[in-house]
Amino acid sequence: MAEKTVPAAIEFARNNQQRFVEELKDLIRIPSVSTLPEHAADVRRAAEFVAEELRRIGMENVRLIETSEVENSLGHPLVYADWLHAEGAPTVLCYGHYDVQPAEPLDEWITPPFEPTQRDGNLYARGAVDDKGQMWMHVKALESLFATHGGKLPLNIRVLIEGEEEVGGEGIAWFVQNHGDQLRSDLALISDTEMFAPDLPTLCVGLRGMIYTELEVRGARIDLHSGMYGGAAPNPFVALAQIIAKLKDENGRILIPGFYDKVEAPTTDELKAWKALPFDEEHYRQTEVGSPELTGEPGYSVLERTWARPTLDVHGMPGGFIGAGGKTVIPAKGLAKISMRLVPGQVPAETYEQYKSYVESIAPRGVEVTVRLIHSAEPIVVSTDNHYVKAATEAMHEVFGTDTVFVRGGGSIPIVGDFVRELKVPTLMMGFGLPDDNLHAPNEKFHLANFHRGIESIIRFFSAVGA
Amino acid sequence: MAEKTVPAAIEFARNNQQRFVEELKDLIRIPSVSTLPEHAADVRRAAEFVAEELRRIGMENVRLIETSEVENSLGHPLVYADWLHAEGAPTVLCYGHYDVQPAEPLDEWITPPFEPTQRDGNLYARGAVDDKGQMWMHVKALESLFATHGGKLPLNIRVLIEGEEEVGGEGIAWFVQNHGDQLRSDLALISDTEMFAPDLPTLCVGLRGMIYTELEVRGARIDLHSGMYGGAAPNPFVALAQIIAKLKDENGRILIPGFYDKVEAPTTDELKAWKALPFDEEHYRQTEVGSPELTGEPGYSVLERTWARPTLDVHGMPGGFIGAGGKTVIPAKGLAKISMRLVPGQVPAETYEQYKSYVESIAPRGVEVTVRLIHSAEPIVVSTDNHYVKAATEAMHEVFGTDTVFVRGGGSIPIVGDFVRELKVPTLMMGFGLPDDNLHAPNEKFHLANFHRGIESIIRFFSAVGA
Repeated sequence: MAEKTVPAAIEFARNNQQRFVEELKDLIRIPSVSTLPEHAADVRRAAEFVAEELRRIGMENVRLIETSEVENSLGHPLVYADWLHAEGAPTVLCYGHYDVQPAEPLDEWITPPFEPTQRDGNLYARGAVDDKGQMWMHVKALESLFATHGGKLPLNIRVLIEGEEEVGGEGIAWFVQNHGDQLRSDLALISDTEMFAPDLPTLCVGLRGMIYTELEVRGARIDLHSGMYGGAAPNPFVALAQIIAKLKDENGRILIPGFYDKVEAPTTDELKAWKALPFDEEHYRQTEVGSPELTGEPGYSVLERTWARPTLDVHGMPGGFIGAGGKTVIPAKGLAKISMRLVPGQVPAETYEQYKSYVESIAPRGVEVTVRLIHSAEPIVVSTDNHYVKAATEAMHEVFGTDTVFVRGGGSIPIVGDFVRELKVPTLMMGFGLPDDNLHAPNEKFHLANFHRGIESIIRFFSAVGA
Repeated sequence: MAEKTVPAAIEFARNNQQRFVEELKDLIRIPSVSTLPEHAADVRRAAEFVAEELRRIGMENVRLIETSEVENSLGHPLVYADWLHAEGAPTVLCYGHYDVQPAEPLDEWITPPFEPTQRDGNLYARGAVDDKGQMWMHVKALESLFATHGGKLPLNIRVLIEGEEEVGGEGIAWFVQNHGDQLRSDLALISDTEMFAPDLPTLCVGLRGMIYTELEVRGARIDLHSGMYGGAAPNPFVALAQIIAKLKDENGRILIPGFYDKVEAPTTDELKAWKALPFDEEHYRQTEVGSPELTGEPGYSVLERTWARPTLDVHGMPGGFIGAGGKTVIPAKGLAKISMRLVPGQVPAETYEQYKSYVESIAPRGVEVTVRLIHSAEPIVVSTDNHYVKAATEAMHEVFGTDTVFVRGGGSIPIVGDFVRELKVPTLMMGFGLPDDNLHAPNEKFHLANFHRGIESIIRFFSAVGA
């Protein structure tokens, strides 16, 4: 079957490249920013757009699954679809997300974030690669197979696409935990990761977990004048600074007692393979980070520091006076948004407790500290020891002409943990983003050659799995 | 003259109390927030309102002095007026400001900040006491004297009212420095301070100075995803926290080398008088600050810490993600608004250099630090050894029936330094605010009894000076 289907489906995909891109642009124009309540209607509109397309290409049982009753969900719906008529063939669960990060700061975008623009072979827009563009590869691979295979697929497919990935909403976790019988599969496929380098097909076999927290410090009951009260009233931002300075030392080592106790080091083989990857630290510093120097724990390579070592970051410190000029206020309260990336061995709930107790124990006098958990995700390591991994590497070899490299991701994809735990299925993370795609930042982009190669790789992979 | 004028002017003021308040409300309704460009027209409207009233009551040469060409001015005009026909009598320069602080956070106001509301004998509004209400006392004292003294005053008066006090704009400093001949006086009178306690007439004879700075830390060139880059990219907010934690220790002692070298301690007499003031630290903590504990340097009383010891405060930390939920970004840059209050002996320019060099020397690796001076003011001590002080204490004794206490102010009134340096005149700081008036905070108020007693005190003081 593969011999016959593949060339036709590939040809179909090639003949429809520009249409696929135009459709993706339409999806991107819907500003489905899940964290902002004022975009709730847009988020739903994006869900409906995806559902409509799944229906059009031939998927069945297409529906929105409502999550508004679910605790810790913002009520953005899941999109579900399936096609289950390939008797005897395996079932692949395709996961993606149709929500996007906020686009701020808007003034740093060269072209507007929700007006997708093609430049130099790239498509620039919020969500271009994370994850609308990559999710669309799945849809377009399925369309190409349906269109050239008599309205059928060579394998069974379930599609589950969420709208709360960027906010850690728990709608999908609730569904996976409570309706796993509706998701029975042999494998989950996610395209929400990146290639290690251009032209280098990549499978991601490990992810960091995380806990995202908010630290609130309250001093005086109301904002006070710093002239009149400076020297007597506690300053929440000074207190936050003192706390943060005790969370991480100047070498990037986290100072929370017990934090590293359960950290599992990568295997010797893994470390050896990482050393062989084409990685130029100075080039990475200059082209991707652009800071005067890279930071982090001494004694670990950049890949180890970003893939296999836990970290702590401060994302912003709301409160107080942030306008132009000088307002002489001692703010009544200040906040810090602080997250930690966790690695295999660490347990989010345990780490959160360690963090919370430590923060409470080091709170300076005069202030009240409240710690809140916003969301969390487990660290993941995926076994490379299964025939789906082999099928994927072969599919990508046919498209790219080179061997696949195995890497880890520094970010979190919480759903992978749910798939492992609840559905007992491995997850293949086959992503086609590039390291300089500006995820979560202004000028996010997707290299369109990779969009098309992604579609072809997925067509070949599905065909091989169904063969 | 005094015997005849005073009772009539006082009677006039008493008969017009409600009108005076209503006029003040009209002035307060103009949201003259000097730091916000969108309120520039309102600021000018407030200036015109004040000028119009000065003209109406009988002042001469009333005019707006433009400052838009002045460096470090926002172009908000000065209001000038004089009446100089009391031959042989001294000249008093009345200073005030018609601009106000921003009203944010709006949701903490019980009634809208620019809709003045009377409750429990207080007038609640932004600017009620700082400084529209107190400046209005001067205007209404002058009106009462004009109205009952045949259209004349018992002394010579110049009025200079600015619109950039809350932003440290240098329009007025420019005018004082370059047109001192138009301001020749024997004394400056400012009502922009507070009484030590209700019913306790107070003269402020010392002010802290300040430097207000902005500290900008830049790490990566663009915002980065904390999953992908956490562990390699520098975090500007962590760097800011590390810097701030090294600026001030947990006892409130400032760690900038040389910072305390030139600090002059108050005299033994002053310290003794402060100890005799009615001050209950626990009551102050509960009713004014409301924090679990007061903070600051051990070994100094609260009055010493807020009047005679320098401090450092962080007012806000703009940048990064401050919305709801969790955005996993490593911000490219972060800022901290940091000010220091200075005491007699310290020189703002010198302290700024000490601070800047120190911050640059402790900047963590991987980031670039830029330090900016937003504005500064010199610390002041006013001599109590002159007959104007005696006239003021007698005037207030007649109104309040008690002796005046001499205090210092923890805040800065930069113009006092300019008056001393450029005009060679002493400044009398005779204020009628109360410690719980919520200056610069939500629910600012002015106790209306003090508004009226202030007017009567100023009538009596002007009469005594002119006698």
